[in-house]
Amino acid sequence: DYIAERYRCVYFEQTDRGNNGRRRTGATPSEEMNGTGNLMDFLDEPFPDVGTYEDFHTIDWLREKSRDTDRHRKISIKSKESYWELIKSLLDAWSGWVVMLLIGMLTGTLAGVIDLAVDWMTDLKEGVCLSALYYSREQCCWTSNETTFDDRDKCPQWQKWAELMTGHSEGPGAYVLNYFLYVLWALLFSFLAVSLVRVFAPYACGSGIPEIKTILSGFIIRGYLGKWTLLIKTVTLVLAVSSGLSLGKEGPLVHVACCCGNLFCSLFSKYSKNEGKRREVLSAAAAAGVSVAFGAPIGGVLFSLEEVSYYFPLKTLWRSFFAALVAAFTLRAINPFGNSRLVLFYVEYHTPWYMAELVPFILLGVFGGLWGTLFIRGNIAWCRRRKTTLLGKYPVLEVIVITGITAVLAFPNPYTRRSTSELISELFNDCGALESSQLCDYVNNPNMSRPVDDIPDRPAGPGVYSALWQLALALIFKIVITIFTFGMKIPSGLFIPSMMAYHHHDWIIFKNWCRPGADCVTPGLYAMVGAAACLGGVTRMTVSLVVIMFELTGGLEYIVPLMAAAVTSKWVADAFGKEGIYESHIQLNGYPYLDVRDEFTHRTLATDVMRPRRSEPPLAVLTQDSTTVEDVETLIKDTDYNGFPVVVSRESERLIGFVQRRELTVAIKTARQKQDGVVSSSVVYFTEDNPQVAEACDPQPLKLRRILNLSPFTVTDHTPMETVVDIFRKLGLRQCLVTRSGRLLGIITKKDVLRHMAQMMNQDPESIMFN
Amino acid sequence: DYIAERYRCVYFEQTDRGNNGRRRTGATPSEEMNGTGNLMDFLDEPFPDVGTYEDFHTIDWLREKSRDTDRHRKISIKSKESYWELIKSLLDAWSGWVVMLLIGMLTGTLAGVIDLAVDWMTDLKEGVCLSALYYSREQCCWTSNETTFDDRDKCPQWQKWAELMTGHSEGPGAYVLNYFLYVLWALLFSFLAVSLVRVFAPYACGSGIPEIKTILSGFIIRGYLGKWTLLIKTVTLVLAVSSGLSLGKEGPLVHVACCCGNLFCSLFSKYSKNEGKRREVLSAAAAAGVSVAFGAPIGGVLFSLEEVSYYFPLKTLWRSFFAALVAAFTLRAINPFGNSRLVLFYVEYHTPWYMAELVPFILLGVFGGLWGTLFIRGNIAWCRRRKTTLLGKYPVLEVIVITGITAVLAFPNPYTRRSTSELISELFNDCGALESSQLCDYVNNPNMSRPVDDIPDRPAGPGVYSALWQLALALIFKIVITIFTFGMKIPSGLFIPSMMAYHHHDWIIFKNWCRPGADCVTPGLYAMVGAAACLGGVTRMTVSLVVIMFELTGGLEYIVPLMAAAVTSKWVADAFGKEGIYESHIQLNGYPYLDVRDEFTHRTLATDVMRPRRSEPPLAVLTQDSTTVEDVETLIKDTDYNGFPVVVSRESERLIGFVQRRELTVAIKTARQKQDGVVSSSVVYFTEDNPQVAEACDPQPLKLRRILNLSPFTVTDHTPMETVVDIFRKLGLRQCLVTRSGRLLGIITKKDVLRHMAQMMNQDPESIMFN
Repeated sequence: DYIAERYRCVYFEQTDRGNNGRRRTGATPSEEMNGTGNLMDFLDEPFPDVGTYEDFHTIDWLREKSRDTDRHRKISIKSKESYWELIKSLLDAWSGWVVMLLIGMLTGTLAGVIDLAVDWMTDLKEGVCLSALYYSREQCCWTSNETTFDDRDKCPQWQKWAELMTGHSEGPGAYVLNYFLYVLWALLFSFLAVSLVRVFAPYACGSGIPEIKTILSGFIIRGYLGKWTLLIKTVTLVLAVSSGLSLGKEGPLVHVACCCGNLFCSLFSKYSKNEGKRREVLSAAAAAGVSVAFGAPIGGVLFSLEEVSYYFPLKTLWRSFFAALVAAFTLRAINPFGNSRLVLFYVEYHTPWYMAELVPFILLGVFGGLWGTLFIRGNIAWCRRRKTTLLGKYPVLEVIVITGITAVLAFPNPYTRRSTSELISELFNDCGALESSQLCDYVNNPNMSRPVDDIPDRPAGPGVYSALWQLALALIFKIVITIFTFGMKIPSGLFIPSMMAYHHHDWIIFKNWCRPGADCVTPGLYAMVGAAACLGGVTRMTVSLVVIMFELTGGLEYIVPLMAAAVTSKWVADAFGKEGIYESHIQLNGYPYLDVRDEFTHRTLATDVMRPRRSEPPLAVLTQDSTTVEDVETLIKDTDYNGFPVVVSRESERLIGFVQRRELTVAIKTARQKQDGVVSSSVVYFTEDNPQVAEACDPQPLKLRRILNLSPFTVTDHTPMETVVDIFRKLGLRQCLVTRSGRLLGIITKKDVLRHMAQMMNQDPESIMFN
Repeated sequence: DYIAERYRCVYFEQTDRGNNGRRRTGATPSEEMNGTGNLMDFLDEPFPDVGTYEDFHTIDWLREKSRDTDRHRKISIKSKESYWELIKSLLDAWSGWVVMLLIGMLTGTLAGVIDLAVDWMTDLKEGVCLSALYYSREQCCWTSNETTFDDRDKCPQWQKWAELMTGHSEGPGAYVLNYFLYVLWALLFSFLAVSLVRVFAPYACGSGIPEIKTILSGFIIRGYLGKWTLLIKTVTLVLAVSSGLSLGKEGPLVHVACCCGNLFCSLFSKYSKNEGKRREVLSAAAAAGVSVAFGAPIGGVLFSLEEVSYYFPLKTLWRSFFAALVAAFTLRAINPFGNSRLVLFYVEYHTPWYMAELVPFILLGVFGGLWGTLFIRGNIAWCRRRKTTLLGKYPVLEVIVITGITAVLAFPNPYTRRSTSELISELFNDCGALESSQLCDYVNNPNMSRPVDDIPDRPAGPGVYSALWQLALALIFKIVITIFTFGMKIPSGLFIPSMMAYHHHDWIIFKNWCRPGADCVTPGLYAMVGAAACLGGVTRMTVSLVVIMFELTGGLEYIVPLMAAAVTSKWVADAFGKEGIYESHIQLNGYPYLDVRDEFTHRTLATDVMRPRRSEPPLAVLTQDSTTVEDVETLIKDTDYNGFPVVVSRESERLIGFVQRRELTVAIKTARQKQDGVVSSSVVYFTEDNPQVAEACDPQPLKLRRILNLSPFTVTDHTPMETVVDIFRKLGLRQCLVTRSGRLLGIITKKDVLRHMAQMMNQDPESIMFN
């Protein structure tokens, strides 16, 4: 079907093994369809396919919730029957926590494995450990016996490729060989990554957060969180990060965590058969993903709440917290960073900051906001070009070329050659006396009376200046290349690259300012605040961002600076456009996402939005006791609506209920097969009383009250659209019927609401494409 | 009116100055009433009183929201007219942030002043500073020149009362005199507190959090957040805490912050004229209150989100964060603790904890859950007794007696004599080499080879054992007395008393266990975890509690232990009863609070809940064109409904809209005064077309379409109550009309929903008393 194709990472052949995850259908008892269930008729056995949704359709939150309550009610009635049922009901009540535990454990484990693998493969681009091939450089050097503290930068067990192949570790020949092999490895990794995505799981591409936001808001994308996607995304994420591309593992880790969540949902029918409950689990899984990506359990919960989730009741808040903690704890047990800490970039400094410093912090915020705007505009323009021009036809080539450019430009600069997280770690840290980094190359003046470890007071050495130049170049390079990288067909995250882009130059200014003073500013703090500002500009997070930053660094003292930068950055960026990068990508891809943040302030009424419009044919309705089976079948064939209102009669137009297309199809098919006497001319009855068959020769009527939803959602035609939007958002409706003084006038679907909102925002209404 | 009386802190005469805060009414243009506004009729000028709510009624969130959008729309249209209007619209857009800034600054300042005053007055019970009467003991000793480090416990400038009056600082006479004066001061403070509350602001009593939760959920309690309440609550809070009663300042500080929020709302018509927007500001103010109470800005935001708020959009999240930060920052600038830190009980230890320790942490959680259940049951039973028996008649006497008992029992034990926060600070801290506390009185064995500061390895001295006994006694005493204290007619908070109640005994067990080992457990950590467990049991918070605890102590490493204890405690306590202390008090007072946490899982339908019931007279409705002014007036006089549905005719019963009682009254009154020809026999028209006056002699008709709400909320009679509850909760409705196939059947109000929920939970339906 053409819509499915639109949504899928577009330019792949439909090999699509990622898409054959288990079908989320299941035998849902038909009596759960409407709340009454006390009307017995022939449809006692459950329909095979009823109660699920089709791919690329939105779910009905209210209905899912009501189905879950029905299930819950049944279990609690049963639990009074026997001890075994009681135990089963207790297990059911605890299954939510069990799922959280499993998600946390698997996510933590995967994150640990990914971290270890990335570490090893990143180093593989430069050299290899002779004592054990599977050691990363750091492990190699630290396990080696010969290494003394002074020697740690030149450990003999670790050999660069040139040294291993030619025996020479210095000189232009070795440099060129290392350079060549670095680029070669990078190309190999990225080629592998893009090929795997292309062949096995097209959904494993990109960051995944825009799609997860859309899924959590109630959209169905089959296979997006499937087993194949999980496997391929994990593998290709390692490859993509190791290849040195300007991307991070954070967004993809959220996707991986959500795949884990979906996997464990299938173990419990409570979650696998209810799309609403499933989304509660996925919200918690997203929290676990961020928790392991940054070692920030609380930040993860807040990220899920602020950024990705749609429906986030308090119960989910508690469970998310639990999942995030288990995940963080598992990661700590695996200990991939070898420091027994959850925090990735632990900062040692706890020096206070001064009120006057708020000015540069706010400036950093402004810079971050501007950079965020620039990045979003550039990236969206590039992605649009990719979608519309020839470029989109050659994804593999694109990845190869970008990797090649990145690798070629990155190698000469020591700050871009290494992995980004190593770099951030160095930037965030203050210089200590034992620091070997170039950034800490201050002149050691033996005549100075101040203690040696009070480094900032010493004049900067040549190393610092060259480092600053290299950093500035690295900054520009990263800014530009990230715009082109994000959105390519390999797993890619934004967080780490964004963090990278901090404003180094304040540093120099302040160095001059505070050289005479005793208390000096902390450069690492500026790096931290700058990173927060840039991330804030790109994603528009505030609270969760600040929490993540201080969980990431352990710097609880720096809430106010971080907050000042994050809020400023958000304000500045919002002035240029309300949407963050994820919302922009959702819009670019045309997902039917009803953002809770968009305020609808226009004066339109429900009557302006509902269909049918004046020029259109009248609404397709069924009557309660005068439509034949054939009429219904024709209606189903001729239209593609998701459901049909049922009215008392065409004259009175008084609404009695709503029937889903899917259920109607199944019910008629079943009745034709199983019920004797149901033929094309049989009348379909939705009334409560038994139809009176006038004459014996009349065909057997088909009674379908059971599948009729007797409580369809209605608004009057005078309802302001603002209220309608609010109702759709808060109750998660699929559609809503419009009445005037009890007469049915029309219908508003989520699609209509979104289209209207887009129109009102003077956007191209065609940019929202959905079913 | 009798209902107002029911809600107010019951047994006070209605001096009630707290209740004469500004009336939150205002000239609201009547055209904002319904979304259309394009129907011009005679009611062009705004009604004086329309659009506000009566005391002890619930607000209609949807309507408030729609009114705000109207306002916003008008401003943005106007802003295109001139530069002045543009500036005004920008100011309007920023007024939210300005209010937050003001709230943060005032809350921070008040919290600082309260802290300083409590410090001084608590010490005043024991003695006085000779060098400056307004110094607290600590300030007195540290500013004194003579004080050396060793002498700090006996500084000469600080004199106990006995020493000052008799010249002897030791001996039984001095002890008795000190004891007597301690009790006397305590009685004086508490008498002052209760008298002030009684005379000036009856609403200033209690913790305030149950009422704030109710107000935030959309209930109107006039004067609860007024200026008088603010002033009196601030003063009496200082008195109550200083008197040594077992209460904390945390809950009342939230109330104080909300009063500040309400105060600043009145500066901006955007907030003062819209009850919905006002509640957004109050949510943020609550966050600021917790922020200064604990020095925990993020915890404050989460507390507001998890515990008190009802409607918490992302915009409020950001603003709350801002307000919380400003408040925390202001408090830091005032620096009442003299340590330049936001955290109240900063812990210095960063020793890791071991997996095995999770077992005692979980046991602490179980203990905390049990204690929480016990506390809630005991306290509620006591409060119910107070409400129903003679006890309630003598609030002043009750306070005096409890203060007397507390003071008499507290003085002999050094751990209860001091203020609770000092005690907690000591308990949370690890013993250092310089610690003078009795708890750190370990035997200094000079033969030991281990370094001196490795205290836990030394055997405990006699001081430790006596301290443990005293602590155990203090624990039992505090547990019992707090049950009686919470709910008295003076400002009282729970947090600090709850924290106090930690499980000391693990300590001894572990001391024995780890004496031979090198790494020992950290007693302070157990105190912290125990405090979290108890608080979790009492309030059922989880995420916000953990965040508050680590912001309070700076112990970012201890998230997992804290979380384990908090979750266990919540589980255990939930097993005995779903409600936390605040929900229990809401229920006890019968506030119409629709808790988002209660899951409604019964199978009832809207038709079972709606009124009129079968035995009742039919629904009071108006017809669109056949009711006379006299009929309407009779209807208004005879019933006390908040509004009336309008139908096409009594025969067809097709609903066209809903009209508010208040607006109807005002409209008729205005029309009778201003419009010629409107008499009792005039027909009231709600139709769109102009009514055709049949004969010249007919009285002038009264056209009231303008006040008709054309988009009343309807559900069908078959809608499950579970869905109805969800709709009421999420959309914040006041009432909802019930229809069947377009015919009006009945009405469901929030009151009906709450009564039904209470019935379903097999509770006494009479316990929910509301309008």
